[in-house]
Amino acid sequence: MNDPKRSEISELGEFGLIDRLTKNIKLKNKGSLVGVGDDAAVIDNRERLTLVSTDLLVEGIHFDISYTPLRHLGYKAAIVNFSDIYAMNGIPEQITVSLAISNRFSLEAIEEIYEGIYLACETYHVDLVGGDTSSSLSGLFISITVIGSAVEGEIIYRNTAKENDLICVSGDLGAAYMGLMVLEREKQVFKVNPDMQPDLEGMDYILERQLKPEARQDIGKILKGIGVKPTAMIDISDGLASDIRHICQGSKLGCQIFTEKLPVDAVTIRLAEEFQIDPYTVVMNGGEDYELLFTITQGDYDKIKEIIGISIIGHMTDESSGMNLLTKDGMSVALKAQGWDSLKNSGNSN
Amino acid sequence: MNDPKRSEISELGEFGLIDRLTKNIKLKNKGSLVGVGDDAAVIDNRERLTLVSTDLLVEGIHFDISYTPLRHLGYKAAIVNFSDIYAMNGIPEQITVSLAISNRFSLEAIEEIYEGIYLACETYHVDLVGGDTSSSLSGLFISITVIGSAVEGEIIYRNTAKENDLICVSGDLGAAYMGLMVLEREKQVFKVNPDMQPDLEGMDYILERQLKPEARQDIGKILKGIGVKPTAMIDISDGLASDIRHICQGSKLGCQIFTEKLPVDAVTIRLAEEFQIDPYTVVMNGGEDYELLFTITQGDYDKIKEIIGISIIGHMTDESSGMNLLTKDGMSVALKAQGWDSLKNSGNSN
Repeated sequence: MNDPKRSEISELGEFGLIDRLTKNIKLKNKGSLVGVGDDAAVIDNRERLTLVSTDLLVEGIHFDISYTPLRHLGYKAAIVNFSDIYAMNGIPEQITVSLAISNRFSLEAIEEIYEGIYLACETYHVDLVGGDTSSSLSGLFISITVIGSAVEGEIIYRNTAKENDLICVSGDLGAAYMGLMVLEREKQVFKVNPDMQPDLEGMDYILERQLKPEARQDIGKILKGIGVKPTAMIDISDGLASDIRHICQGSKLGCQIFTEKLPVDAVTIRLAEEFQIDPYTVVMNGGEDYELLFTITQGDYDKIKEIIGISIIGHMTDESSGMNLLTKDGMSVALKAQGWDSLKNSGNSN
Repeated sequence: MNDPKRSEISELGEFGLIDRLTKNIKLKNKGSLVGVGDDAAVIDNRERLTLVSTDLLVEGIHFDISYTPLRHLGYKAAIVNFSDIYAMNGIPEQITVSLAISNRFSLEAIEEIYEGIYLACETYHVDLVGGDTSSSLSGLFISITVIGSAVEGEIIYRNTAKENDLICVSGDLGAAYMGLMVLEREKQVFKVNPDMQPDLEGMDYILERQLKPEARQDIGKILKGIGVKPTAMIDISDGLASDIRHICQGSKLGCQIFTEKLPVDAVTIRLAEEFQIDPYTVVMNGGEDYELLFTITQGDYDKIKEIIGISIIGHMTDESSGMNLLTKDGMSVALKAQGWDSLKNSGNSN
């Protein structure tokens, strides 16, 4: 309490806190007519369709404050929402942020979370237009709702894949999960010996994938540039196995995925082996990749095959064939979505 | 655990729970193109402006499960959001609902919360179009974001009142706060003697105001019907004193309010006296009334004076006169916004 950098939120009061957190906002998008400061924000989206998605991050479930920098936490809380809008082939434009915080957190801590949120907004050209702030009896909760826009006819849904469509994925998978494993391991090491320095050499990439992920705002533009419109799309938040299942079930189809085609970073493989986990389990079920998973017609194969950073990992089949993973040695394994553990973790209904 | 009516949420899994909670949704508004089930909801609001507001209800801060029926809690969580849209002279059309729940809550408990939310949606013609569900390590958190629409030029802001405008309020004030006081008293009585029957005779109104409030969807229509457009408007969530302050500060004006003009229910007065609280303190600072507070030009006085359920409680003055309350005996008291206690309670930035 005597730390000069610790200010109590209660000293500012409710409206003082909001003023302080929002005083530097400059609305950037022309559709953001009125932001924070009235009963509701006012948005002009009269030329395009409006997209809305929401994600909730809960302390102890989605993040562990002991190894999560608060600035990164704020950044990630915004990114996971932007990702949902890109997955519809839309553009995120506004967010509202609701925070519940226990009195364990100082004003400076809250400001760090907001700095991360603002950095994400700046990077992705999104306006913070409203929110709510409350105390909680214990724990930190961040609920963000994103409003995006899309041109009618350009929105891409989950349930519109066709049989024989090729399945594509951006970037690589499984790194965020291995980042989490490493952070959890270092936490245990630290518990036993607080003087031990964490051994994180060469792990920048996987740690960044876990702690400060990015959303794929580029993929929509790349695909538009080469004249490819995906037939279905979703972002990979729960893990490839779980998310391809959404496309299959929504489209009433099956799929065939080839393990050797799955994009995976070398450090992810090395660490999976070190942790004695099958790397393909990590790739299929790790989650929190925020890559885009999409299907295209076979006719678009030539357009996409040379694009760096997009992998063709399989194709859609008829529903009765089920969802299958074909391993290098020719074995076909029914695809199970282990994903995140039911309500031990997050479930996003949109 | 052996209670046949208690189902564990973990048995259903993440997507099973979402399916169960959302399976009966039928989208009603023509703007709600796609609801739950994809990365984002799709809304067509191309003829009107879009309004967005969000409110967070936190267990132990905003509600006490020991005397709050979960169905009412869900209803109220939706209503407080709708109220923000009516306060802009808009129409609420869609909501997203994010819930964090500890494993103390069964599936049936969650379904009760949703039943309340759906009842509110039905009553106010709003579509539930998305959300997120997570566990929490402790406590229940309900974060709702509402999307509304309004005709350009009809939106009413807080900061556009003019000097000499009349200050009006719908309904009566302070009842929700007295409802809370009574519920808290009964809780203490019950703690001492669990066999004691609660003494709630004649208190239906104040209890309903606290536990199952309504939003004033009628006021906008009434005012339009008599040709009155308020010059500024806000809903009373934090208490009249706090909310008139928003209008004053936003409009750079002062105000003069007359205590004898304040609308207050007889039971509210009787109970305030029983609790030895000044009834006007309750009316000015109780909060959670969800009535509309608005200003009109003096020229509209004749149109509004006979409208039942709307009270003219004072007028706007110049800024240097400050915010004042004139008591029956002619005393002028500077108006203090005690309102809800800083971050002990909620602060809504829009």
